[in-house]
Amino acid sequence: MSVLGMEQHFKTWAECAPRLVAVAAGHEPADLVISGGKLVSVQTREVLDGWQVAVSDGRFAYVGPDASHCIGPQTEVIDACGRYLVPGLCDGHMHIESGMLTPAEFAAAVIPHGTTTMFTDPHEIANVLGLAGVRMMHDEALMQPINIYTQMPSCAPSAPGLETTGFEISAEDVAEAMAWPGIIGLGEMMNFPGVINGDPQMLAEMAATMNAGKTVGGHYASPDKGVAFSAYVAGGAADDHEGTAEADALARVRNGMRSMMRLGSAWYDVESQITAVTEKGLDPRNFILCTDDCMAGTLVNDGHMNRVVRHAIDCGCAPLVALQMATINTATHFGLERELGSIAPGRRADVILTSDLTTLPIEQVIARGQTVAKDGVLTVDCPHYTWPENSRGSIHLGKKLSGVDFEIQAPAGANSAKVKVIGVVENQAPTKALTADLPVTDGVIEGQEGVCQIALVERHRATGDVVNGFVSGFGYEGRMAMASTVAHDSHHMIVVGTDRETMATAANRLGEVGGGVTVWKDGEELALIELPIAGLMSDQPAAEVAAKADQMVSAMEACGCTLNNAYMQHSLLALVVIPELRISDLGLVDVTKFELTDLIETPE
Amino acid sequence: MSVLGMEQHFKTWAECAPRLVAVAAGHEPADLVISGGKLVSVQTREVLDGWQVAVSDGRFAYVGPDASHCIGPQTEVIDACGRYLVPGLCDGHMHIESGMLTPAEFAAAVIPHGTTTMFTDPHEIANVLGLAGVRMMHDEALMQPINIYTQMPSCAPSAPGLETTGFEISAEDVAEAMAWPGIIGLGEMMNFPGVINGDPQMLAEMAATMNAGKTVGGHYASPDKGVAFSAYVAGGAADDHEGTAEADALARVRNGMRSMMRLGSAWYDVESQITAVTEKGLDPRNFILCTDDCMAGTLVNDGHMNRVVRHAIDCGCAPLVALQMATINTATHFGLERELGSIAPGRRADVILTSDLTTLPIEQVIARGQTVAKDGVLTVDCPHYTWPENSRGSIHLGKKLSGVDFEIQAPAGANSAKVKVIGVVENQAPTKALTADLPVTDGVIEGQEGVCQIALVERHRATGDVVNGFVSGFGYEGRMAMASTVAHDSHHMIVVGTDRETMATAANRLGEVGGGVTVWKDGEELALIELPIAGLMSDQPAAEVAAKADQMVSAMEACGCTLNNAYMQHSLLALVVIPELRISDLGLVDVTKFELTDLIETPE
Repeated sequence: MSVLGMEQHFKTWAECAPRLVAVAAGHEPADLVISGGKLVSVQTREVLDGWQVAVSDGRFAYVGPDASHCIGPQTEVIDACGRYLVPGLCDGHMHIESGMLTPAEFAAAVIPHGTTTMFTDPHEIANVLGLAGVRMMHDEALMQPINIYTQMPSCAPSAPGLETTGFEISAEDVAEAMAWPGIIGLGEMMNFPGVINGDPQMLAEMAATMNAGKTVGGHYASPDKGVAFSAYVAGGAADDHEGTAEADALARVRNGMRSMMRLGSAWYDVESQITAVTEKGLDPRNFILCTDDCMAGTLVNDGHMNRVVRHAIDCGCAPLVALQMATINTATHFGLERELGSIAPGRRADVILTSDLTTLPIEQVIARGQTVAKDGVLTVDCPHYTWPENSRGSIHLGKKLSGVDFEIQAPAGANSAKVKVIGVVENQAPTKALTADLPVTDGVIEGQEGVCQIALVERHRATGDVVNGFVSGFGYEGRMAMASTVAHDSHHMIVVGTDRETMATAANRLGEVGGGVTVWKDGEELALIELPIAGLMSDQPAAEVAAKADQMVSAMEACGCTLNNAYMQHSLLALVVIPELRISDLGLVDVTKFELTDLIETPE
Repeated sequence: MSVLGMEQHFKTWAECAPRLVAVAAGHEPADLVISGGKLVSVQTREVLDGWQVAVSDGRFAYVGPDASHCIGPQTEVIDACGRYLVPGLCDGHMHIESGMLTPAEFAAAVIPHGTTTMFTDPHEIANVLGLAGVRMMHDEALMQPINIYTQMPSCAPSAPGLETTGFEISAEDVAEAMAWPGIIGLGEMMNFPGVINGDPQMLAEMAATMNAGKTVGGHYASPDKGVAFSAYVAGGAADDHEGTAEADALARVRNGMRSMMRLGSAWYDVESQITAVTEKGLDPRNFILCTDDCMAGTLVNDGHMNRVVRHAIDCGCAPLVALQMATINTATHFGLERELGSIAPGRRADVILTSDLTTLPIEQVIARGQTVAKDGVLTVDCPHYTWPENSRGSIHLGKKLSGVDFEIQAPAGANSAKVKVIGVVENQAPTKALTADLPVTDGVIEGQEGVCQIALVERHRATGDVVNGFVSGFGYEGRMAMASTVAHDSHHMIVVGTDRETMATAANRLGEVGGGVTVWKDGEELALIELPIAGLMSDQPAAEVAAKADQMVSAMEACGCTLNNAYMQHSLLALVVIPELRISDLGLVDVTKFELTDLIETPE
């Protein structure tokens, strides 16, 4: 099942060295020479006009003013026509599952944007399929023509005791994964309260990573930069992408972490932090750009790391500095500075040709010496892994659901009930803990006036359990329901609806198709994104997934939803690590107290 | 024999993490708190006024504006009194043997100067004792209270076929050493012609190093920055300290190497190269300061890395940039940026207190949280390794030498002879290939008018062989001889003298004392530096060795020597990799052609 063999076809520098030396010396011809360009040296932060490169075995053999001695009859020669040669872009931290795409289709989508390296944390699949799921992502990643390194997920569940995941990740799992060929470190250590309090499992996971000489990813999602932050840093996290303000970035780099600044589909954390460099004048070497989460539509319509670099430049960052933040800084962080991230001998020959360093049009992309995209069109195959049966049949509902499963019983004899309501806030991840007085019909509490029902349907162990609650803020009207098996972080199924029968229909539909997102209105399915792999990912190309996602948005609007980016809000309603009120398979969760709480308020 | 156990007492970050977290969180008291200072953040290139540090287990636990929560009744508190806290200085490449000191005594000499980390290449002892000798240096290094990492020597012999070393280093030796706890990489790959021509052994040594994830040290001592340089870089060397001009530095960093700029006792290569940063404005991250070779007198009188940093500042480099070049840049280069080289949580607590960032007085030195020097005085023990018998009895002369052994026979019946003469040039490493017509007495050629005799006395295998020749330029007069078992790189014994009996006396004297340097005049010993360890190192403190070295210089002057730094010239006369004419145990060597040559010129 492993594709180790495929990765090993890409030889190490040491293995290639005899040929690299011979090519550089002019004793053997190169595979590829690029001349007529201007080389962006991210190691010196300068443009070297006229510098040429010669490539053999997918690595740079020669970098200098004249590569003509490396050209033989079989050598491919590319004339850069005065354009810049820029190292391929690196995404310092991201989750492939957020695009609802497999690693292969994600790679296919981002390669034309100039991304040649990604550091991916398959945290979502880890919650569904455990270590085996991580290995599947890892193995497909290694099959790709670009560099996709895997960060071993650290926190499944992310909130122990408050949710039940499909599988859990243990410190032993982490130690085991550190020996896999594509593992570059530990994925974001989200359990920052655990670290601060010396949780032995969290420290053991970080120790296993550090003992393997690899990089511990951080995730400190609190504005408190005092003692708690210091304790977190002392645990070993080497980077953090959760900063949202300049002061966050300052605290991180001053404490010896690297500040990862993200621009995802919904994250806009570059502009507020890059002033640490552009205004405060700090040494930029410890700043890295990343996306964290990109939806397919963003990749199709806006770009990937090229979008982030352009944005950084728009925010006032010097182009060469912004490029360093997406190339050599990232490579150095992960101990790969002699492997990739710069145009220099021995490194993987990952190059973008662009005619402008500010607008950064991606005109040609070369990865490991092979042209992989030209003028926005992929020119290479991104091989698909044969996903095993258990990854495709991951929706275990236990029974056919009916409207009754979504009934919320009122206290005996009550005519109305005061209940807690999850209040969705537009463009914010945190929810509000609201209350509402709702009517009771035949002993069942009914939503009204913008308050509709939410249910968490267990889907990992076929228990048939349904946890019911109320949610407001979406603006849904009429007889509708929306269900999704993307339900961070434990990825059960979240169903939101105004009508219990429709909720049952939507939930059963996802059981039939093996997971995804579906929107129903008046007995009709308005949109469906099938996500057969772990209930998280399509195996279709990004453009198709993006088109279906557009349909989903239209369908939500047709149901009366007026919120921006409402799918994201939907899929985060079970994320029991962000305040204030969430739902999990164990019940309603008060995330201000990190404890389960009752749905129905008892009279004082 | 290994002292592995001692090093392991210094716990890894992962092992300390529970306590570091507890200290940072204020749950456990720190061992040490430093307050009242200004922290130099080399990771951000800024001074953080008032920032404090808390240390436990020899590592920084807390770094921030207020460490008072880390102070308990047993916590040592140091008031920095407004001084700067600077990370301990790192020497990026150096040879301990050049100081004629053991690692322990070298450490004792440099600690008061603020050096807390050294990357040392025990190349000299490797020529005398092979891998076993490297291990001895490595083991004493690990016993020290500062960080001494060993670079595995790569080139013994440095000129295969032109000299016979005591032992040779093989690719298998390199692979074996990579598993030792203190090995950080491969020592300078001096055989650059070998690399350029694809020599399998050189490539195998670099491959073994890269496969171990370690750093290949470079040494490209040619001014040719064309194809030959490019071929060398493609082989895998990650740094180079042989640059002497700005263009050398530019070529190295643009090719993805780190440029190491050295200021040793005799090397002055910072001023000419640092303009790449100070004038060309290149990103300074890939520039590193080092000493390469320091004699004991330099350490006693002038300093060590503090001298280099001061000099860089004198050359116009901004103090914070110069400090980065001796701290975080070095640490990052060797993959140690999370282990040392900055004042940040988890790193080894190596700190200098200084009241001025330009003149850099070293007022207090803390290594791994322990005060190791104060006001120039060492306050810690630097433990001595028990050097085994074979390291001390390394002078194997094979016989008692007499004047006859130094007789150079003239061709039969000749009254005079035309001979090659090694011409020493003041303040230059290269020699001149000269000739002289010398008189013959009783069939023996006699030196005259500034031309005296030189002999290479075999000392590794007790062959009793003596290779004789002529040398000029020292200015010796009267009946004198000087002998040294420091005789780069194969370290036989070089004897220079005006009188054959005195030469024999000097040589025999070094055989008796087990190696060193001795100067004789008119039957009297004017100076002796005993170097009992491998014939290269004293086991005495630097001050004593420096005093004896001063005596040696006086003795040479008393013999008529007028050259600056003549000891260095003496000890390099067998260095058969630097042009033009040298002597080895195999004969006279024409280093312009890399071949053996006859002493006596045959008439045309």
